[in-house]
Amino acid sequence: MRTTQFHLVTRKETPQDAEIISHQLMIRAGMIRKLGAGLYTWSPLGFRVLRKMEAIIREEMNASGALEMLMPAVQPKELWEETGRIEDFGGQLLAMTDRADRDYFFGPTHEEVITEFVRDEVSSYKQLPINFYQIQTKFRDEIRPRFGVMRSREFIMKDAYSFHLSEESLDETYRLMEATYTTILDRMGLNFRCVLADSGAIGGSGSQEFHVIADSGEDAIMYSDESDYAANIEKCAAVSLISQRAEPSEVISVVATPNQKTIEEVSHFLDIQAEQMVKTLLVKGIDGPVALVIRGDHQLSEVKAAHLPEVDSPLQFLDDKAVRELTGCDVGSVGVKDLNCPVIVDLTVANMSDFVCGANRDDHHLTGVNWQRDAEFQQQADIREARAGDPSPDGRGRLKQARGIEVGHIFKLGDKYSKAMNAVVLDETGRSQALQMGCYGMGVSRLVAAAIEQCHDENGIIWPAALAPFQVAILPMNYQKSVQVKETADELYKRLTKAGYEVILDDRKVRPGFMLSDFELLGIPHQVIIGDRSLDEGFVEYRHREKMEKQKIERAKIFEFLTQQTCL
Amino acid sequence: MRTTQFHLVTRKETPQDAEIISHQLMIRAGMIRKLGAGLYTWSPLGFRVLRKMEAIIREEMNASGALEMLMPAVQPKELWEETGRIEDFGGQLLAMTDRADRDYFFGPTHEEVITEFVRDEVSSYKQLPINFYQIQTKFRDEIRPRFGVMRSREFIMKDAYSFHLSEESLDETYRLMEATYTTILDRMGLNFRCVLADSGAIGGSGSQEFHVIADSGEDAIMYSDESDYAANIEKCAAVSLISQRAEPSEVISVVATPNQKTIEEVSHFLDIQAEQMVKTLLVKGIDGPVALVIRGDHQLSEVKAAHLPEVDSPLQFLDDKAVRELTGCDVGSVGVKDLNCPVIVDLTVANMSDFVCGANRDDHHLTGVNWQRDAEFQQQADIREARAGDPSPDGRGRLKQARGIEVGHIFKLGDKYSKAMNAVVLDETGRSQALQMGCYGMGVSRLVAAAIEQCHDENGIIWPAALAPFQVAILPMNYQKSVQVKETADELYKRLTKAGYEVILDDRKVRPGFMLSDFELLGIPHQVIIGDRSLDEGFVEYRHREKMEKQKIERAKIFEFLTQQTCL
Repeated sequence: MRTTQFHLVTRKETPQDAEIISHQLMIRAGMIRKLGAGLYTWSPLGFRVLRKMEAIIREEMNASGALEMLMPAVQPKELWEETGRIEDFGGQLLAMTDRADRDYFFGPTHEEVITEFVRDEVSSYKQLPINFYQIQTKFRDEIRPRFGVMRSREFIMKDAYSFHLSEESLDETYRLMEATYTTILDRMGLNFRCVLADSGAIGGSGSQEFHVIADSGEDAIMYSDESDYAANIEKCAAVSLISQRAEPSEVISVVATPNQKTIEEVSHFLDIQAEQMVKTLLVKGIDGPVALVIRGDHQLSEVKAAHLPEVDSPLQFLDDKAVRELTGCDVGSVGVKDLNCPVIVDLTVANMSDFVCGANRDDHHLTGVNWQRDAEFQQQADIREARAGDPSPDGRGRLKQARGIEVGHIFKLGDKYSKAMNAVVLDETGRSQALQMGCYGMGVSRLVAAAIEQCHDENGIIWPAALAPFQVAILPMNYQKSVQVKETADELYKRLTKAGYEVILDDRKVRPGFMLSDFELLGIPHQVIIGDRSLDEGFVEYRHREKMEKQKIERAKIFEFLTQQTCL
Repeated sequence: MRTTQFHLVTRKETPQDAEIISHQLMIRAGMIRKLGAGLYTWSPLGFRVLRKMEAIIREEMNASGALEMLMPAVQPKELWEETGRIEDFGGQLLAMTDRADRDYFFGPTHEEVITEFVRDEVSSYKQLPINFYQIQTKFRDEIRPRFGVMRSREFIMKDAYSFHLSEESLDETYRLMEATYTTILDRMGLNFRCVLADSGAIGGSGSQEFHVIADSGEDAIMYSDESDYAANIEKCAAVSLISQRAEPSEVISVVATPNQKTIEEVSHFLDIQAEQMVKTLLVKGIDGPVALVIRGDHQLSEVKAAHLPEVDSPLQFLDDKAVRELTGCDVGSVGVKDLNCPVIVDLTVANMSDFVCGANRDDHHLTGVNWQRDAEFQQQADIREARAGDPSPDGRGRLKQARGIEVGHIFKLGDKYSKAMNAVVLDETGRSQALQMGCYGMGVSRLVAAAIEQCHDENGIIWPAALAPFQVAILPMNYQKSVQVKETADELYKRLTKAGYEVILDDRKVRPGFMLSDFELLGIPHQVIIGDRSLDEGFVEYRHREKMEKQKIERAKIFEFLTQQTCL
């Protein structure tokens, strides 16, 4: 492709509404253009990257045996009434009414449509297992669309839906999809983690998220430095940091802690470590208040706490007045001794001894507190957030923390949808059985933004080889006037193109500095700079977008040099 | 692909709402499934054909230099207010309102969106000409969606939009698109015609339609048997069938024609040819009634008549009362002599002599009528429908008539949209100029149905090689039990697949007759039938879907035989 025959419009300015780097770079490189809130046009440049993503996903999904098909974007409302999900999705559903007064939604996902398809098309166990997928346009009416295509309203998704007679068969395909997603993201050259996740509004019994690692990621993920254990922070098990409770060695004492409320203040005042303290959090429970106790230096996991059967969901803390009614003191002095409500302690807290806590009396704390001897708890549970440095829950290595961008999510849905929509098959014995179902989503348009979040520097995008819109950029200086520059550039372009490489030759009449910084912004991996001065000495210059050091290559050897580069 | 690992569900019954053969066959073959009125899911089988269509279109569009991109399906209403097309599209526009109360349409076409993109992205003549295209999902809320994907509401379209500084440049790209569409349809193996067409609601100065020829086509198209002239019947010029008017040879006489109203009745009663008569049709004009006169055996073209500046559009005929007020007689006796309104005659009528017409008196006609001597006309014009057998308007050959399915439409839009939306560029002299624009649509999903309308017999689809979901079907009889059948089938499958062919091996446990009629229905071009009886004699059977005669091929030579078939 020659630039003058392509559509290349870069911008110096960063648009005001572009908060994150991928959004900024995609606008500056001219990959996307905003049509409206959360609506983007993909320019020919951006579309080339989108197509590469799609092609890799399609190849690997096909290799897994999944069958590509295509469902309508416009979905009849009645289907959503069958599963009762209209409320779950709420305002995210974009509603439409046709000229015959029938109601529809612009599909935000396709569980209902595929289940309707399958209940009519699949009647026998002989047709199972089967895994359908599509790469298709979806719409979710986000309250606050932002971050460009990272959180747009109209977006492209690969969604797959598998159907099975048994849970074992579902497990097998689920694991196959996990492996397929891993291959897809590996092929894209992205650094990612597959993490245990909460199932959320889609439902079902198990799910994993695929996160592209990037500092700007919205999600905190924990992973082992020695094994492949990884989990969303809400889902990451936080093990006990004390393997066995030591015998008491101190006597319990009341100490005055005037105006010392926080863990930091109290530990500083008493000259002890936060690790020696516990903090007691009072929340609303099913039958009155519940005390949740975590170590002084730990963070409550509100998601885990809300999952406890004794605790109200969503989690609600008692207000100051309710705390004083229950304990006779302010929040900063609440402890575990003689509490008038059930006490649930974190796994680490359960094994602590000689610890410090509030005295349930304003401005006083207790030291040398020990379980059984001084106080009781009703239950121990994992209620804290895991933390970098904790032992990995699988017993191998320690946890590290990273930030991630969710680009994929796989679910075991079980029979949630097939029961609601009566999708059954006859098994080997002729009995009617509800189908087991899995679903596997991957955000194609979001992946483009995620890749840029991971792969960029201060001057622009650094495309992984598999995703670059072009593999090689030929950048001739003074192409219009210098015969030797033009001949060298044209000849290289011809040879590379003929050999099947995707090449862009910049034949615009622009200043060298402008051209070079344009291609730094665009992030084309291999760049060949052709100018009179170097040609006179018999060479051309090569730079790789990642390292950016210029390298002199003999003019006659540049084709062979390029074809020997890795990932070309 | 093995059938048990694919999704193949055929039906014996034709669904009640499937009126046309392609709809019936697509449902019976399991290519599509209805989700709602005018909404279809493409099964893996149907999707394979859709993808082949897409791939051919994409390759040829890219080869033409057009740049693929992608615009949102959801379009802000304000853009449509800029061009004032909301009324033109009327009820076809599917409206949506988002949670912030902003109004959108599900895009039925993208002239507004691309013009908005271009007015921001293209500012200089140096960026021109440029041709953007996308393959994308559209929605038109048809009053009566029917014929399956032939006239569905949600459909897939390839739409391209080109931009130019001059009309000459637009002409050039328009011609390139005409050639590209021709190549695309040729590659698909379809019999088609490119015809002159009316621009309709899209607007602009010139347009051509591409029709796939099929008896069931909704449109009548005329084409020359000697040249490449072809036109939609509404647009096909109808030349004068009489080169020069002969001198009068009869005297004018009044004859009684009691109760003879129609051309057929009168000509029979008077024992003359319909070709000797003219019929006078009275319609509403800008300044009162207008008489349109065509030869007795000809058909008025309502489209051509409505285009006359003197005539109201849409065309309205005078009712019986108004006819009697104007002429003093009933409709069946209206003639051309002493008419109290302007008379516009067809080109053929203008050259008639000694003709017969109504006498403007109930139950009477005039014979031996001649222009100038007996009656006057104010204007002659092409107002009749062209007819098979007429001379071709380009002077070469005679017209033939065929029925066609419109699958593509190319338009010269000129500056209609760029002026309405203020899309301008600076030309070489620095002057601001409105862009010239062309647009080029092709119905991808409709093409699948059109191909089937053209290529089928009473037993099913007959896919052209380039469109078939699989090129070869291996049909083993008793695959589950016969070792030699299984080995032969598996080996052939392996070799063909390895060589890059798309093969389906039917490993279902079904009766031979069932399997054979399934693949007749599916229309796979090359079918290899492998059974014990023929293997015992050292051969397998081959049949081509089109001819269906079985041919014995030596077992050892079947691979070579297949690879030597044309179009494989």
